[in-house]
Amino acid sequence: MAIGEAKPPAAEGGALSLDYVFHPRSVSVAGVSPPQPGAPFAGVGLGFLLALKDSGFEPLYAVNPKYDEVEGVRCYASVLDIEGPVDYVISSVPARIVPALVDDCIAKGVKTIHFFTAGFSETGDEEMAGLESRVVAKATDAGLRVLGPNCMGLYVPSSRLSFHSGFPLEAGPVGFISQSGGNAIDMVATSAVRGIRYSRVVSYGNAADIGESELLEYLAEDPETEIIAAYTEGIKDGRRFFRALRKAAAAKPVVVLKGGRTASGTRAVFSHTASLAGSIEVFDALCRQVNAVRVDSVEEMADAVVAFRFLGEPAGPRVAVAGGGGGFSVFAADEIDEAGLQCPVLPEETQAALRQFTPAAGTSLRNPVDTITLFEPGGLEKTLREVGQAQNIDVVLFHTSFSWGASRRLMSAFGGTDPAPFMEQMVQQMVRARAAAGVPIAVVMRTPLDVEGMERSVLFQEKCWRAGFPVFPTIPRAAAAIARVLQRKVGSERP
Amino acid sequence: MAIGEAKPPAAEGGALSLDYVFHPRSVSVAGVSPPQPGAPFAGVGLGFLLALKDSGFEPLYAVNPKYDEVEGVRCYASVLDIEGPVDYVISSVPARIVPALVDDCIAKGVKTIHFFTAGFSETGDEEMAGLESRVVAKATDAGLRVLGPNCMGLYVPSSRLSFHSGFPLEAGPVGFISQSGGNAIDMVATSAVRGIRYSRVVSYGNAADIGESELLEYLAEDPETEIIAAYTEGIKDGRRFFRALRKAAAAKPVVVLKGGRTASGTRAVFSHTASLAGSIEVFDALCRQVNAVRVDSVEEMADAVVAFRFLGEPAGPRVAVAGGGGGFSVFAADEIDEAGLQCPVLPEETQAALRQFTPAAGTSLRNPVDTITLFEPGGLEKTLREVGQAQNIDVVLFHTSFSWGASRRLMSAFGGTDPAPFMEQMVQQMVRARAAAGVPIAVVMRTPLDVEGMERSVLFQEKCWRAGFPVFPTIPRAAAAIARVLQRKVGSERP
Repeated sequence: MAIGEAKPPAAEGGALSLDYVFHPRSVSVAGVSPPQPGAPFAGVGLGFLLALKDSGFEPLYAVNPKYDEVEGVRCYASVLDIEGPVDYVISSVPARIVPALVDDCIAKGVKTIHFFTAGFSETGDEEMAGLESRVVAKATDAGLRVLGPNCMGLYVPSSRLSFHSGFPLEAGPVGFISQSGGNAIDMVATSAVRGIRYSRVVSYGNAADIGESELLEYLAEDPETEIIAAYTEGIKDGRRFFRALRKAAAAKPVVVLKGGRTASGTRAVFSHTASLAGSIEVFDALCRQVNAVRVDSVEEMADAVVAFRFLGEPAGPRVAVAGGGGGFSVFAADEIDEAGLQCPVLPEETQAALRQFTPAAGTSLRNPVDTITLFEPGGLEKTLREVGQAQNIDVVLFHTSFSWGASRRLMSAFGGTDPAPFMEQMVQQMVRARAAAGVPIAVVMRTPLDVEGMERSVLFQEKCWRAGFPVFPTIPRAAAAIARVLQRKVGSERP
Repeated sequence: MAIGEAKPPAAEGGALSLDYVFHPRSVSVAGVSPPQPGAPFAGVGLGFLLALKDSGFEPLYAVNPKYDEVEGVRCYASVLDIEGPVDYVISSVPARIVPALVDDCIAKGVKTIHFFTAGFSETGDEEMAGLESRVVAKATDAGLRVLGPNCMGLYVPSSRLSFHSGFPLEAGPVGFISQSGGNAIDMVATSAVRGIRYSRVVSYGNAADIGESELLEYLAEDPETEIIAAYTEGIKDGRRFFRALRKAAAAKPVVVLKGGRTASGTRAVFSHTASLAGSIEVFDALCRQVNAVRVDSVEEMADAVVAFRFLGEPAGPRVAVAGGGGGFSVFAADEIDEAGLQCPVLPEETQAALRQFTPAAGTSLRNPVDTITLFEPGGLEKTLREVGQAQNIDVVLFHTSFSWGASRRLMSAFGGTDPAPFMEQMVQQMVRARAAAGVPIAVVMRTPLDVEGMERSVLFQEKCWRAGFPVFPTIPRAAAAIARVLQRKVGSERP
């Protein structure tokens, strides 16, 4: 669907009835003020305006009776003063002004209203909870759809919608719904550097109208979404959620993260989005029943999405590990076992083939393969190919690091201080090894410790994911993500 | 003890009988070649020479009959040709040349020989295992002490000994023994950026002579060591190890990491250092009995050492969390509960005090405290002080991040692009809050994702540890480290 071309609202219950919400013809941000030095967070509305401006959304309007223009965007006293149609309004006005804004939106024929505005039911104040109910009911009765309150709204790169400057403008196959705006930002930020791109990201906060179940139903059908991730704090309607999750998980990999697993977390959930967290045991059983993959943190969610996006499906749980470092190899073996995968001894013929080009001293070829040959010309390709071709191996983990001077020495040995050509050569070797061995290869790149290490790590990570390799920061995180891909595979094969 | 001043060898069994090993008058590296382009790892001996040169050790000699000088260091045909006394020899020669080198060392009156040389018992080859036994017996019979084979040897900043260029030259209170050279490098590198400095680091490999028990006995008595960390793959003499660990853990906090916990790890351990890993259940029971703190990874070991070094001892397990982000706060509450700590609701009077300077909308003050006030002038100090003074709080966790542009906006609001003054102001607020509240404060700084975030994170991290704050990358890692400090405290109070 082209940018700027809106669908009419579909009848409720239609599979893609929410689609027009993601394709507004125009957006207006209500409650925007110019930057105020000394009060960096006083004008969050400005953040929405700048994010939309940065991502190139047009036409874009600001609303605030005090200004004619904010950061180069024309500013109106009221939504009603805007000349053209307004499909989508972001409310950054205080809670007490919200009723008047809703009246204006109804009169203007706005289709969707997103309340960043917080201070409603999540405060625990009955009066504010009542106000939330009344304004949401008034809007929905008039046919508007409501996002929030207390949320960041939409990041839809194909529609040039964004709630955060700096997010990729490129679209991709992952749909993500999040009851927390902060988690939505963390998830996109931490996964973007690992190559994850999004179809739709929805931060839906208190879920007074649009909530987790409707969004899952939508993403299950959405042709632009191939992988679904969801962060939820509480479920409004358990039966509907169960049906939606089952439908989504049958259609696509679904990764679910639940906030409020403990007594303290459950309490924090109520303060955050006025949700009742429910029992994690029940939630876990539900996920297992429908073959959704449950995770415990944003890191694990990003890892699982990276694995579903880039790993491919290993035939089984038998992992070969290759990299430099004897102690690291010992941990790798322990950590692979602990993740429920296997780290079998390589067949004699594979060890013999490796021995052809690997020195005996200071190396180990049984699995994990601990060798410095990986750093010699062509050694990476030969090593990964041999271990990947072994009959008892389903997936290969290659671990490396670009921190702490080790790389500096490598670079100079390869005749230059520009690491890009050397890394390019590494990735080409990995691509050839993967093609020859016919098994998935995952990369573990340890977290850098200094600025120089970060420069190189960022560069290598991007080359890896652009060549279709999943990248993880540690062996346990890689192993857990691989185990989750296998968990879903086994679950799908169940009768 | 001043640099260059050596102790005479003490009688075996004396508490500090190993001390002279750490204070050689001179060092010679045998098996050094000049840099060879295209073969970056061909000359590992050179790495030792450069590390010692970089750390300013003198007098330093190279040994190789082919050269007169290597990288500005005078090179001799044999150890016997060196004019002055040679206390410490690093062997980087191939295994087959080792017997001749040992003869020369005995004739020269060398006190300690460190075999980086690998390819001995860890290959699983009986002939090489026999050679290892013979050369080690010959050396020790002649009164030499042997480190290794198959190890990196010593990093002792106060003696200017180092096995890795770029390690801090500054000494500190942590003693670390590691059966793996790679883990020794990882541990020092990852903890150095968090403010950990070392008294002695010993990579002891196959432990043919000097091993884990003797080193623990030494560190237990060493006045320059206040905290002990140990990575072991296998124990040669269980009874002696038990006594040594008990003695060390009674004297100082001892953090122990065991490689080879699973079937695959146990197998990898043998390939690495020819050790027999033994049962992790027995090892775990042993640690609990003597009140040593057991961890499962280098990351957890670094975290525990950081906590013992900088946290101080909390009176109990009740944690207050402060930072920005509702979803992050929900996880924090879950993760603190899951680590066995507590995240209690703050008293009404504390919430009222916070409410004085914190807006209602979009914040939560019950605990976790989720507020943007932390970023307003003076807000960090007031918030941390109030929560730290609460009667039901023993320790405060402040979480923040310097990635993804959030900081850029902050910086500009504080009138500049140089983040240093702003961070300085933050740390000063934290110092004052800690003094006023009288409870430990720990910092959780999320891992940066880009180069700019890394620049800022490195800067803030250093300011934090220089002001005595422990820094962790995630809430679960901080919570686990705090739980370990409390575990040792409770264990010490047991009758």
